[in-house]
Amino acid sequence: MVAWNNFDTLTSYKKLASLANSVNLKEVMSGENGANRVKKYSVPMAGGLSYNFAAKQVDDDVLVALAELAAEAQLTEKYEELYNGAVINTGEKRLVLHQLSRGQLGKDVIADGVNKREFYVAQQKRAAEFANRVHKGEVTNAKGEKFTTVVQIGIGGSDLGPRAMYIALESWAKATGNLKMTAKFISNVDPDDAAAVLDSIDVAHSLFVLVSKSGTTLETLTNESFVKDALVKQGLDPAKHMVAVTSETSPLAKNSGYLAAFFMDDYIGGRYSSTSAVGGVVLSLAFGPEVFARFLNGAAAQDETAKNKDIMKNPSMLDALIGVYERNFLGYTATAVLPYSQALSRFPAHLQQADMESNGKSVNRFGEPVNYVTGPVIFGEPGTNGQHSFYQLLHQGTNIIPLQFVGFKNSQFGKDVLIEGSTSQAKLCANVVAQIMAFACGKDDENRNKFFAGGRPSSIIIGEQLTPEALGALLAHFENKIMFQGFIWNLNSFDQEGVQLGKVLAKKVLAHNTDGALKAYAELLNI
Amino acid sequence: MVAWNNFDTLTSYKKLASLANSVNLKEVMSGENGANRVKKYSVPMAGGLSYNFAAKQVDDDVLVALAELAAEAQLTEKYEELYNGAVINTGEKRLVLHQLSRGQLGKDVIADGVNKREFYVAQQKRAAEFANRVHKGEVTNAKGEKFTTVVQIGIGGSDLGPRAMYIALESWAKATGNLKMTAKFISNVDPDDAAAVLDSIDVAHSLFVLVSKSGTTLETLTNESFVKDALVKQGLDPAKHMVAVTSETSPLAKNSGYLAAFFMDDYIGGRYSSTSAVGGVVLSLAFGPEVFARFLNGAAAQDETAKNKDIMKNPSMLDALIGVYERNFLGYTATAVLPYSQALSRFPAHLQQADMESNGKSVNRFGEPVNYVTGPVIFGEPGTNGQHSFYQLLHQGTNIIPLQFVGFKNSQFGKDVLIEGSTSQAKLCANVVAQIMAFACGKDDENRNKFFAGGRPSSIIIGEQLTPEALGALLAHFENKIMFQGFIWNLNSFDQEGVQLGKVLAKKVLAHNTDGALKAYAELLNI
Repeated sequence: MVAWNNFDTLTSYKKLASLANSVNLKEVMSGENGANRVKKYSVPMAGGLSYNFAAKQVDDDVLVALAELAAEAQLTEKYEELYNGAVINTGEKRLVLHQLSRGQLGKDVIADGVNKREFYVAQQKRAAEFANRVHKGEVTNAKGEKFTTVVQIGIGGSDLGPRAMYIALESWAKATGNLKMTAKFISNVDPDDAAAVLDSIDVAHSLFVLVSKSGTTLETLTNESFVKDALVKQGLDPAKHMVAVTSETSPLAKNSGYLAAFFMDDYIGGRYSSTSAVGGVVLSLAFGPEVFARFLNGAAAQDETAKNKDIMKNPSMLDALIGVYERNFLGYTATAVLPYSQALSRFPAHLQQADMESNGKSVNRFGEPVNYVTGPVIFGEPGTNGQHSFYQLLHQGTNIIPLQFVGFKNSQFGKDVLIEGSTSQAKLCANVVAQIMAFACGKDDENRNKFFAGGRPSSIIIGEQLTPEALGALLAHFENKIMFQGFIWNLNSFDQEGVQLGKVLAKKVLAHNTDGALKAYAELLNI
Repeated sequence: MVAWNNFDTLTSYKKLASLANSVNLKEVMSGENGANRVKKYSVPMAGGLSYNFAAKQVDDDVLVALAELAAEAQLTEKYEELYNGAVINTGEKRLVLHQLSRGQLGKDVIADGVNKREFYVAQQKRAAEFANRVHKGEVTNAKGEKFTTVVQIGIGGSDLGPRAMYIALESWAKATGNLKMTAKFISNVDPDDAAAVLDSIDVAHSLFVLVSKSGTTLETLTNESFVKDALVKQGLDPAKHMVAVTSETSPLAKNSGYLAAFFMDDYIGGRYSSTSAVGGVVLSLAFGPEVFARFLNGAAAQDETAKNKDIMKNPSMLDALIGVYERNFLGYTATAVLPYSQALSRFPAHLQQADMESNGKSVNRFGEPVNYVTGPVIFGEPGTNGQHSFYQLLHQGTNIIPLQFVGFKNSQFGKDVLIEGSTSQAKLCANVVAQIMAFACGKDDENRNKFFAGGRPSSIIIGEQLTPEALGALLAHFENKIMFQGFIWNLNSFDQEGVQLGKVLAKKVLAHNTDGALKAYAELLNI
């Protein structure tokens, strides 16, 4: 049996505290020692990726202490419990099975009388068959014309992950002839969101995917009505243009208002649902089921690496441990995610949800307040864009912010130009490695305005190309990193009670059932 | 003469420190007292906006101390020096004149032998005339066909601000018949960025706006070549499809490779350039010069409010003061920007640059290290989307993050649906006011997992609708807020030396002139 203890009760907590600031990054990254670290501090990932942490404020002593923490906190044992179907989501008394949507890591998981792996695979097959029929023109609009566009209607995890994944592979799909349908996304209850998307598409040739687990998400149902109005106004039958992704017990299941319904369940949280039907339907329609299967394979292979007890063979666990070391002992409050890949432009927004909604908590898994800081702020934009924006603060600001770089040797389109003797891709890659060193080692200058203190830690995930497999591995890496950090902090990373209060108060406002400041604010906004 | 002193040398610094945590937000926002604060703690802005700070951790005592700080730090006097043409950018020995691109606040500013207001107005007129000729079909492609799309090629301030402004007004322009041309943006040196944009447009009917002050920005020139290659491959003459926005002394000025060149100068920094030709050319082409003029009017009117010595009549200065109080005395390290408006989806990314690049610094304007923290991390996404994402951490995480909400009574498109008795716009507005109160007052619950501590401060900018005037006012508000904070921290907010080192090292990598860790990293990325 695993033991769920608060982080500050562990022996390794004290040891790590004693090692805080024991590594001078500027020193260890200089000269040949630095070159050796770059070669040595690298861990292979799935999808052709590797995780390099040479520019983190760790050395072999810190790594030993982190390995001790991993063992003492029973990280891989807890992962094993999770994928074997324990009730890890204690608040909601649920299993946590998103890994099972892409592979089986352990025992058969039976829940609600069903083998859950078989359930997820069955839904993938149904989505694949449906997508193939749409692509072949067997499922069409009322006039018998092919659908050219797929529009996902969802919010939070039903939006951010699938949207980020679509954007990540759109150019790759174009370049490889795999773009079957263009995808768009409607999420915000702001009516201008749906109006703008509807204005940008050919509604008559669009298929809408309504995603809501409960079938009751207010934003999503509101946007569905918005879309149905638009269809009706064009003389189209909404039931011929809509599919649902929902739970089997929701009002959207077995509903003649939809061409088909694909199912998920309570064991996959929204922010972990890109590899379930939530991502699977829209991505299979956009890229074809084979591409979606490759994406799942990348995630499954990365999940396998997370089983390894050796931190030097378990990149997600190592990344988690270093992150906790930075957060709790070096005092850093935020992490910047900086992919040098335009295709990953919305990946930081997805991670922002995945990480901050999972570990932005003040109570442990038993509902008791913890005495240490937990999840950091996550933000980021693609490089090189960010270099011409907020990097000023990262380099010379008064707080240190750890950095998570991502870079690929090859572009997706493969189109490039040679300027001043180098391709754009080479310039992109040169910039990311230059940044790592600029942050780590800084630069002395008598003019303090041009002085760079250095000592600013970063890691980089390096890949050959952003393929479906690489994207799957990248996604699973961060999901597992977040999971391991939740284990260390002794949190329930899989509920989100913090989103409830706002919903309750918003309903009161709409019912005009308010007083005091809330009423005064509502009047200011004419509600 | 104004005196430039470090923040911690001021009398009001000590007074404010003594007032830290003197306000219990949960208490003061409860009951009728809370309602009174909402009515009282509101300051009008330009563009029909107002700044409401009822849910900030301030009271009349703190406000008195903040007013003393404003006076002691001579904030409005420094602003006056700035708009009258003093060398405020000490590092680069430059004037700071972005306000002059939309109005004249003080004396004539003569620099380089030119009246600068006249110079900026002349460039606006030239851009307006050019845009009108394009719209009338007097400037066309080689076949005499109208241009339908405008593509801005630029990075950093030449991209983020103009892009955010375009997105902010695109739906409004569609709804009001003001969308003359669709705009796209190419920024990243990642070749997939340009390739994806080129793939999405009709190149033969596209006009490209190359934006580089020096005419030497590597990313921008590389992307220009990329675009020129694409034009040539389609048998098109690049010189018939390109205009430049640059300085009068750059190689792009008076160059037969461009249909026209529009000028900016060294006195408007990239991140402050949306109201100059950098934003003016693309926005005049997209929306017409009249809309751009309305945007400038909104900014100019907001600039006027920043002259007021009374903090209750100067929303930008008040916002700046409260932000400094939170950063230096309450210890908050980040600020979330949360517009409840899908149209402002990229406004947080623009503010991220404007704020973090301006005030993310550790030395004062004389190049001496400061002993206090300066600019915070800025991040954000539109609501209600964010509610289903990172708000969990904002509500229940272990660190408090101040929030900057923005909300409008009316949508841009005006299309809406009535669900459960309320429109989408009403739901959007109900959500933002509900969030303010949830953050401020929290909720007791015996189940600590459902407990909300409250005490989490926010402000909200409220407007009628996101019009060109409102957008201009919003932009100028934050520019002036950042300027005032820079004055308080005694920084030079108008240079960005922190971006230089990375550029230098990237060049070394591309020249294979590296050793140690930098060489090892470069090898990992096949450079």
